[in-house]
Formats: sequence, structure tokens, C-alpha cells
Amino acid sequence: MAIEKQVVRYGPLKDFIAQGVRVGDTIHLSGQVSVDAAGATVAAGDIVGQVRQAYANVAEVLGHFGATLSNVVSETWFVTDVPGLNRQARGVFTARAEAFGGQPDTAQTLIGVSALFQPDLMIEIQCVARV
Amino acid sequence: MAIEKQVVRYGPLKDFIAQGVRVGDTIHLSGQVSVDAAGATVAAGDIVGQVRQAYANVAEVLGHFGATLSNVVSETWFVTDVPGLNRQARGVFTARAEAFGGQPDTAQTLIGVSALFQPDLMIEIQCVARV
Amino acid sequence: MAIEKQVVRYGPLKDFIAQGVRVGDTIHLSGQVSVDAAGATVAAGDIVGQVRQAYANVAEVLGHFGATLSNVVSETWFVTDVPGLNRQARGVFTARAEAFGGQPDTAQTLIGVSALFQPDLMIEIQCVARV
Repeated sequence: MAIEKQVVRYGPLKDFIAQGVRVGDTIHLSGQVSVDAAGATVAAGDIVGQVRQAYANVAEVLGHFGATLSNVVSETWFVTDVPGLNRQARGVFTARAEAFGGQPDTAQTLIGVSALFQPDLMIEIQCVARV
Repeated sequence: MAIEKQVVRYGPLKDFIAQGVRVGDTIHLSGQVSVDAAGATVAAGDIVGQVRQAYANVAEVLGHFGATLSNVVSETWFVTDVPGLNRQARGVFTARAEAFGGQPDTAQTLIGVSALFQPDLMIEIQCVARV
Repeated sequence: MAIEKQVVRYGPLKDFIAQGVRVGDTIHLSGQVSVDAAGATVAAGDIVGQVRQAYANVAEVLGHFGATLSNVVSETWFVTDVPGLNRQARGVFTARAEAFGGQPDTAQTLIGVSALFQPDLMIEIQCVARV
């Protein structure tokens, strides 16, 4: 069954991974992390800074589809240090609200993981968006 | 691209997290855990009891959308102790069948995680439902 | 709200878990792992072989719906040893490209987990497909 996919690829992993795939009115995004355009980790050791950068990357993927963070309906947070994040919950959720321009209307799941793709990463955010 | 979201918020985390978001015929739910209405952990140390309470909370979220557990199409179980759950598989899957009123027609993924949002939690269940 | 689900069940877990559920044009698959038709682990200790077998199982589920790997839009990889996978990235991504018949047009998320359903499993792949 052939389907029509709109696929967004860019950055250092573009030969292996699409950053986002749209079919119909749903966009699935790859997990976004705190890296810059070259794939280098940003804000090592700083969970608030990593949240900010990860959302900047989510917004960039969505922008390629003409969408924004307001289109996100579900986000799964994979976190390497849950107690550490909880200790900085105020800063983390403020950074999230700033990214969305207010408290977001999203379902959220937060999970502690044993590792992410690169050792310095502290959070990966996987989103589903609707357009 | 503006979309119309139906958002369900309640409970102690309502300023930060929606419990569910519906767009069109799809509902994304936040991960549900074994907590009571005040957010306190229920059934600490008892995986069967935690499964039961988590599904009660899934059902409550769905009820706000006029839906039931029969609308769930996919569930991801994030579990802190997979061998421990396997040792009680009979009780766990009986509790699940009782929640659904029979063996559910859902896709399921079961993953071991290093931590959940609160230390006493043993399982978090993330669901997608269709209406 | 009654919905019409197309449910695919087979194999040793068929009384408990559907391998896939379709509603409308979306298929949610259960996490697929490196097991044979009897549920025994295949390619213990060999991450490349496990990736190959897991995708064979994804393809089998999709085949029951008349779909193929080209219908996958999102895949989440849950991996027990992320550094070990990274050391064999070339073999792993070659096996993935061979399964799809070229680099796939999918969103991908890769997460390190503390355990999978059986101790010898090294990877579990959870997919969403559109038809």
C-alpha cells in the first residue's frame, strides 16, 4: 500500500534518520536532543539548558513542515537522571513554558533511561504533532 | 497551522501537564501511574496493585473524553523491575484483563526503565486511543 | 464510542498481546524483538543479527495487514547497550537499510533501557505505520 510521506532530513545524521515524517495530518518527529547544527552536545551538565536546546530543535523540525510547537500533542521525555531533573523542576518547566509560549497543551510522559545516544546528553524529547 | 485540541487537565500536575489531548479521532494520554487523586503513590511494593491503579487512572482520563479502555489501540509499559514483573506475570495479566473486561485488543510494548517520576512507582503506562 | 479495530494475533503470546492493531489508516505495532516463531531468542549476543531478526518480525506483522516496511513512519529503538550498539553502528545501520531496501523514510528515536522482556534480548523496535 503506497502512502505519500513528506520527509524532512538534514544535519549530520541525514543519511540515516529523518528528523520528521508527515503523512496526512500527523507528524512523527525523531527524538530531539541538546545538540547544535553540527551534532555537538550543547549545555553539557546543565539540564535546563538541554531542555531549552532540545525544544529549539523540535521547533526547527516542525518549522520545516510549516508547523510550530503549538502543533505538538504528545511528548515523551527520556531522562538520564530523574532525581536530578526533579531537583531542578522549576527551571526545567519554566524553560519548557518559555519554549511553548505558555504551559503547553500536550500529553507528557517522563521516563528514566540508562543511556542516550551520546554520553553527555541528559534528555531526549520525542514528539507527535498534528497539523 | 492552527488545530483544534480537546485538552483534559486535572489533579496536582494540572498546571504543567495535560492528562490527555484529543485531535480528530486520536487521543494521546500522558503516562499513567499508581497514584490517587492527590498524587500520592498507591500500592507501593505491589506490582499487581500498581497495574490495577494505573489502569483505573487511564480509564479516568478516557472517561473525560467519553471513551473507555476499549478505545485503547497501543500501550507502552515502562517498568522498573522486569524480572520482578515476570515472576508475577499471572497476577499482572489478570489485573490487566479485569481492567479491560477481557484480554485487550491492543498493541503492547514492555520496557525496563531506570527510574519513574516518583521513587515508589513500579510501572507507567502510556496509551494511545482512537475514538 | 465503538471503533472498528483490525487486530493481528499470533505466536506464543497471542492470548495476551496483539502484534498489531489497525484503526483507519494507522497501524500500531507491539515492540518487536529478536525471537523466532516459537518465541525463543535468536542471535544472542549479536546486535546486528538481532536488528535483522527484529525487522523480519516487524515485516511479518505488517504483512498480516497487507503492508510492508515502507509503511513505517516512526520507530523507537529500545537498546540495552547503547555504547555497544554504537561500536557496531556500521553493521547495525547496514542491516536496517537491507531490511527496508534502502535508507528508510522514518523518524527514529534510540533509547538505552535497563532491561527487555527476556534477558538475552538486546533491542526492541516499536513502530507506527500508515496505510
